[in-house]
Parts: sequence; structure tokens; C-alpha cells
Amino acid sequence: MGATVSRSADAFLYEQVERQVREMIDTGVLKPGDRVPSLRRMSRHNRVSIATVTQAYLALERKGLLEAREKSGYYVRRRQAATVPRPVSQPGTARRVQVGDVVETILGAVHRPDVVSLGLANPSPELLPVKALTRAMIRVAGRRRLASVRYSMPEGVGELRRQIAYRGHGMGCALAPEDVLVTSGATEGLATALQVVARSGDAVAVESPCYFQILRLIESLGLLAVEVRTDPDTGLDLDALDRALDRVPVKAVITVPNFHNPLGGLMPEARKQRLVAMLAARRIPLIEDDVYGDLHFDDLRPRVAKAFDETGNVILCSSFSKTLAPGYRVGWMAPGRYLRPAVTLRRALSGTTASLTQLAVSEFLATGAYDRTLRSVRRTYADQVERARYAIAEHFPEGTRVSRPAGGFVLWVELPGNLEGEALFHAALARGVSITPGTLFSATRRFRSYVRISAGLPWSERVEQAIASVGELARSMT
Amino acid sequence: MGATVSRSADAFLYEQVERQVREMIDTGVLKPGDRVPSLRRMSRHNRVSIATVTQAYLALERKGLLEAREKSGYYVRRRQAATVPRPVSQPGTARRVQVGDVVETILGAVHRPDVVSLGLANPSPELLPVKALTRAMIRVAGRRRLASVRYSMPEGVGELRRQIAYRGHGMGCALAPEDVLVTSGATEGLATALQVVARSGDAVAVESPCYFQILRLIESLGLLAVEVRTDPDTGLDLDALDRALDRVPVKAVITVPNFHNPLGGLMPEARKQRLVAMLAARRIPLIEDDVYGDLHFDDLRPRVAKAFDETGNVILCSSFSKTLAPGYRVGWMAPGRYLRPAVTLRRALSGTTASLTQLAVSEFLATGAYDRTLRSVRRTYADQVERARYAIAEHFPEGTRVSRPAGGFVLWVELPGNLEGEALFHAALARGVSITPGTLFSATRRFRSYVRISAGLPWSERVEQAIASVGELARSMT
Repeated sequence: MGATVSRSADAFLYEQVERQVREMIDTGVLKPGDRVPSLRRMSRHNRVSIATVTQAYLALERKGLLEAREKSGYYVRRRQAATVPRPVSQPGTARRVQVGDVVETILGAVHRPDVVSLGLANPSPELLPVKALTRAMIRVAGRRRLASVRYSMPEGVGELRRQIAYRGHGMGCALAPEDVLVTSGATEGLATALQVVARSGDAVAVESPCYFQILRLIESLGLLAVEVRTDPDTGLDLDALDRALDRVPVKAVITVPNFHNPLGGLMPEARKQRLVAMLAARRIPLIEDDVYGDLHFDDLRPRVAKAFDETGNVILCSSFSKTLAPGYRVGWMAPGRYLRPAVTLRRALSGTTASLTQLAVSEFLATGAYDRTLRSVRRTYADQVERARYAIAEHFPEGTRVSRPAGGFVLWVELPGNLEGEALFHAALARGVSITPGTLFSATRRFRSYVRISAGLPWSERVEQAIASVGELARSMT
Repeated sequence: MGATVSRSADAFLYEQVERQVREMIDTGVLKPGDRVPSLRRMSRHNRVSIATVTQAYLALERKGLLEAREKSGYYVRRRQAATVPRPVSQPGTARRVQVGDVVETILGAVHRPDVVSLGLANPSPELLPVKALTRAMIRVAGRRRLASVRYSMPEGVGELRRQIAYRGHGMGCALAPEDVLVTSGATEGLATALQVVARSGDAVAVESPCYFQILRLIESLGLLAVEVRTDPDTGLDLDALDRALDRVPVKAVITVPNFHNPLGGLMPEARKQRLVAMLAARRIPLIEDDVYGDLHFDDLRPRVAKAFDETGNVILCSSFSKTLAPGYRVGWMAPGRYLRPAVTLRRALSGTTASLTQLAVSEFLATGAYDRTLRSVRRTYADQVERARYAIAEHFPEGTRVSRPAGGFVLWVELPGNLEGEALFHAALARGVSITPGTLFSATRRFRSYVRISAGLPWSERVEQAIASVGELARSMT
């Protein structure tokens, strides 16, 4: 069993209990079907209340690791895919990034309509509220015809900024409408943030693995990347980051603490708090990408790191692209003390975001339809992710490990033996299935034995067949 | 009288005749009400055909300089505002640009609803086809519901790229749909072009005066600007440019050859051709901003410089923001041989342009409604510009000179004596009228005695009063 819990540690008590149980499962101390320690025993062992243990077990149940049996306690679920092993730590040095060409090739292939796309982390159109959103859009376009064709204020449409500020409270942030800058998707927000804090040749610290579009952004801006080990359960390794910051002059740290892409993990709140404090002390801005934050499988919307920001040092970026309408290109940022330069830069480089789509999203939010959409879509993604995990566990060769996401819809898969993710990508594409090779998620082409598989498509025989087919290929190649 | 025409010169014959007559008016050789030389005499004098002179006189008539009287020939129009003097040449050196703060201050003031906005070169909402466009948008959103919320291809919606390629022929360009990249307004196109060809610290050559948003773009990207003298009638001074390019290693030249902002002039075709050839020989890319090209007062849509591009060296940028819907943020670029890096960079920095607005514009273009809109709006702008010119001539102090635009809707005004544009700007704003000080149009704060006045608003007593009020102020300050 892992170390006992500690009141001074990085995670809240229940999170520490939860992690203990995860580790018992990961290391094989607890096997599928095993009964986990009773609430009373666990509480005594860790010197925490029964309520704390209950909170931990409920969280594990919601995440599909445990199941409760009436009058008998909690059990490890039988069909359990293995988790990803903890990545090995590596010294972080600043590197030039060169992923663009590979990304272009892969994305090009992925757009083919004959291909089952498990390679893109795009929401499935079937899961977007297309009709209701279009209705809201048409309503507002009729009512605000002139506003929909004119430039909005450079910071964005006022109503939308108010709606976003309101939602900020659910993320733990006391945002005012004036703190919010509307952008064309989160991508433009991240690009703006990077351009405001860094110049060509500067280094920024990124998670490892890191979402390849963030790496492309870094490459396009001529920046260097310092890769810092990131754990699926606890997020960015703060000690490793601390050491890296001592060694390399870094202009910003970029992180996806909520449902990291590709890891799917959720950084515990206490660690978010430590990260924010650490960077505030060093006066290094934190750029936070929360684009998956609304897609939590737990009941609770996780807080953003910005919730712990007391100095305006955190630049929070998000969008409605994963949940509402990718093609509307409505994102936003809360740039803290970088608001003025962010507004100025965006205005110079792209003007404003389209008024029509801003008005449509704001109308949709105002009616409460967005929250209804989220409630239903979260369940669906949790279900799809679970099904995909089990399908991978069933069809992929022995020794394959799969992440256990707490939200979002991507899976991070470690292949066994010498099987390379890129080889599997090419073989799978030839069979009409796209996946994403792990090498894309690193500036130094690490993660050769990994692939990312998206569970964004509605579950169907076709999707299951696609996973089975890639698994079969993987078996034949091992 | 100016030099006789020459077959080897920069301008076509009729353009040279036209310029001769302009110079006769500007220098006072011909006064308002004077009869201009007869077709026969002018043809003999210049050794050109009568048809060529007729072409020149008709062009001058359309531009409001001459009027035809039956059986009596052509006369200089009576109410004639003076033109802007030819700017003095200056040696071009690479300078850091710092206009951002001033621009922010001015644009901030200009958004006030109580202010008559003669300061922004925005099309008046009354002159946009708001109803018809909204109808087209709603039609296409219903028919292509899914496509309107999904990502478009990174290069843009296929139908729109086809429509733009088709319109390219009217600009003298044989564009294929694959040559076109849709951007979020022309601003994003220009930003992309600059980022593809230059890195922070590089120099680019700009026109002097230069549209301040282009200067802001240069400033934001950390580039240096080499200012090259630009003439209202003939455009960028090609000899001065040639000398500047010999002296400074320049990564690109940016130009607005059609209805330059703020000069309003049209670069003659022969000079466009020479400019393109000159830069192709030096392998320096030409970035062309044609955002006003559709707003010609003449019958003929002027060709773009890209029409003369044989090597893919011209990056043409434009948008529908001045004519259709600024708030839709639909622009485009034809990046020539820079297409691949432009697509890659845009994808990395902002993803794609909103699908919904792309589809709406494409639907509107397909129905032919855009051409009908242009026909009516061109006449309106020509009329507004003329009225504003005459109002300025009437109300501003003696010695004021006003440009004579060939298209678009901005006027470039030289104030007499020691009157400074910035002082007039502040005084006018205090009286509830915004204008733009000339200093914004230079990296070196030249044009102190100039202001730009927009004739984008529909002509009304309020607008005339606003001009009269600024003129009165100017008189009191001289």
C-alpha cells in the first residue's frame, strides 16, 4: 500500500486516499474482483474520517474503477484495462520544435471520409446541439441583425463576455466581464498568450506529453520547448518543473490541468494551487488551456488553476469548440495582468471574432441550453470512453496499457514490446482507421510506443470494429 | 503643361494624358470653369489617337474633375477642391514602429456613440446589404446545418474558395480555388503574409503614408518599417523603392495599389506591372492589400498587382469587410508560392475561419447579390466622397488641400500653415467629431499637418455639420 495521507501534501485528503487505491490497482495489489479495504479500515489506517474515505470511494466508483455491492462494500471492477505507467523523468532542456510536417501529413489523411477517425480529438457532430444552436443563432440574427454584421468591440460582444464571466464562477474564478477577451477558438487565445509573453528564440515549459497543436504553435512562433514530465493522475511534475525553471530561463509554462490531452488526467486542486503560487513567486506567467474542463465525468466541474491566481499571473484560455460548435470559432481568454497587451496584439493581428457566432453562443448560453447540453454529453463521453477502454483491453495485445481519463474523450495507449505507434498508425490508416502516433506529443519525439485514440465518435459497431481491427493489427505486429 | 506622353513610360497612354490634365489643374494652369484643350489638339500635341484622349477625358469626367458641355467640349468643374501636393521624397531607413498606443487611444475615443465618426474607415451599416445577407445566411444555415457548426477545411469552405477564384478573374487574376486561403478578415491575411516572409527584427518596405493598421501589425510582429514616398496618383515611388531596396535588406514590400488608404489613389496598371517585375527579379515578395478594390468610382474594376504576377511572388489579401459585413470576419488571401507555409501557420495560430459566415458569404456571392450591392454602393460612396470634398473646400481654411480619391471612401486632407492634425483631432473630438490625425500614418510621425476624414457615413445634415464644425475649428486654430 502507498504512503499514508498527509495534511501538508499537495493533494486534498480524499484525493490522497483515491490515489492510494489507484496505486494498489495499478501495482496489482488489488486485482479485478477484489474487495477493497472497508471504509472503517481505510479510515483508521490513514487517520482520516470515514466521510473522507467515502468521498474517495465514490469518486473511484464514478470513474469506473470500483463498484459498490449492496451490504458488501466496494470491489475493483472486473473488466479493468491497465493504466499507463508513470513516465520516467527526464532532464528538461530547451529544444527546437519540429512537428509541423508530421502533423500536416497526419491531419491530411485523417480528413478522408472513408476513414474511421479515431485520430482527431474533435467532438462528434452527433453530440453537438446543432439544431438548438442553429435556432438560437437564427433568432438572434433576426433580432440583432445590424449587430450581427458589424464589428463587435475588440474585446468581444458584451453579452457573451458577461455569460463567460458568469460561467467562470463555476470554475472557481471571480471573473468580471471586463476580464474576458473573446478569441477565435482557444487556439487563438493560446497563440495570443504566447506572443504576449515570449519572443522568437525564447523558451517555454510544456507538459510531456503535450498536445501537438500546442507544440505546433511553439514551432510556428519560433519558440523553444522545455518538456516536463507529466503524470496522468497528478499532472505536471512540480518538482521537475522547479528544477527546470532553475536551469532554463523560461518565459511561460503551458498546462492543461483539466483532462489533459492526451493523458485525460485531472490535476488535483492542491497541486494547481502550488503550481500557481510557484510561478507567481518566480513571476513566470502560467498559460492554462481549459478546453476540456466542461467535460468532467465526475459530478463536479473541476476548478481551473486560475481559481488560485491572486496576482493576475495566469492566462486562462478556453472555447466552446469541444462542446458546442467547433466551426463557430468562439473561444475566450482571461489574460489577467496581460489583458491590455493581449487586446492590442489580437486587434493588430486579426481584428475581432465574428459578431454573428459570438451573439449565437451568447444567446444559447443565456437560455440555459448549454448546461442541459453538457449534462447529457458528459454522460455520453464517459460511456464512450469506458467502452473504448474495454474494447482496447479486449482486442489489443497483452501488455497494452490504457489511460483512465477523468474527463474529455481521448485515450492514451501504451503499446507492448517493441511495437511503434507510427508503424501502427500507418498500418491502421491502410485499413481505414486513423489513430494518432505518440511521437506527435513531444518535441523530442518521445512516446514512440504510444498512440492516442479518440473516443469522440458515438459508440457503434463500426467504431468497435475499428478498434478491434487496430488491436488485431497490433497483435500481428508484436 | 506636363511632359508629353511616352510609349515606354510607366503608365498607359490614356493614363499619361489623364495625369497631364490633372497636373494642369493642380498647378493652376487650368482653373475651374476653364475649357480644357480639345480632343483634336490634345491628340496632336501628344501624338496619340483621339480615342486615347477621349478615354482620358471620360475617366476625368467620371472622377468629377471635368464636365462635358454639349457641342462645346470638356470644362474643368467649377467647385473644385484642391489636391494634395506631391509628398517630398525622403531617404528610407529601417525604423522601429511605435504607433500602437496612439492608435488605441484614438480608436477608443472613436467608438463613443455620441461622436460623429469621421475617424474610422468603416463602411456605414446603412450601406451594407444587411437584410439580404442575413436572409442568405439563414437559408444556408438551415440547408447546411451540420457544415455550419463543424470545422471547415483549414483552407476554407470549398464553395467560397470557388466564388473567390471566380471573382479573381474580374481583378485580372487567373486564380484556381486551390490558390485561395480563407482568412478572418484581410487583417489576418496580412498578418499571416508578414509572418510567413519575415521574422522579428526584419525590415519591410511600406508606403508613406501607410494605413496605420499595417503599421500596428509591423509593430506587433517586432518588424522594422522602411517608408517609401507614395504619390496619390501614381502610387508607390518605384525609383525611391529601388534605391531603398539597394540600401536595406527588406523581406517584403506591402502596398495598397487600389484606392490607397489614406490617399485614395489608384496605381496605374503599367506601374503595377513594373513593381511586380522589379520585386520578382529581386525575389522580394510583394504583399498586396486590395480591400478597397471593389469600391471603384470608375466603371472598370481595377486590376490587382497580382494580375501581373508570373512567379507566385505576390501575396494578395482582401476581404468582404468593406462591402458586405465587417463583423463576419471573412477575408481571403492568394499567397502564390507562399500558400503551404501560409496554410500551416494559420492553422497553428488560429485554426480556421468560422464556417457559418463563410457559407453565408458564399451563398450571397452565388446569387449575384454581391454584384448588385456593389453597383449601388459604389455610386453612393463616389457621391459621399464628392460631397465631403466640397464641404471641406467650403468650410476649411484657405490653403487646405484635399485628395481626389478614385475609389474607397477616405479623404486625405492637408491643413494650411502650422495647424497640426493632432491638435485638430483633439479639438474636434471635444466637439463630438472624430477624425484621424495624419501622424498615425507614419512610423516616423510624419504628416503632422494632415488628417484623414472618412466619407463612409451616409450624407446627412449631421455629417455636413460635423465637417463644417471641424472646418470652423481649423479656421479658428490657424
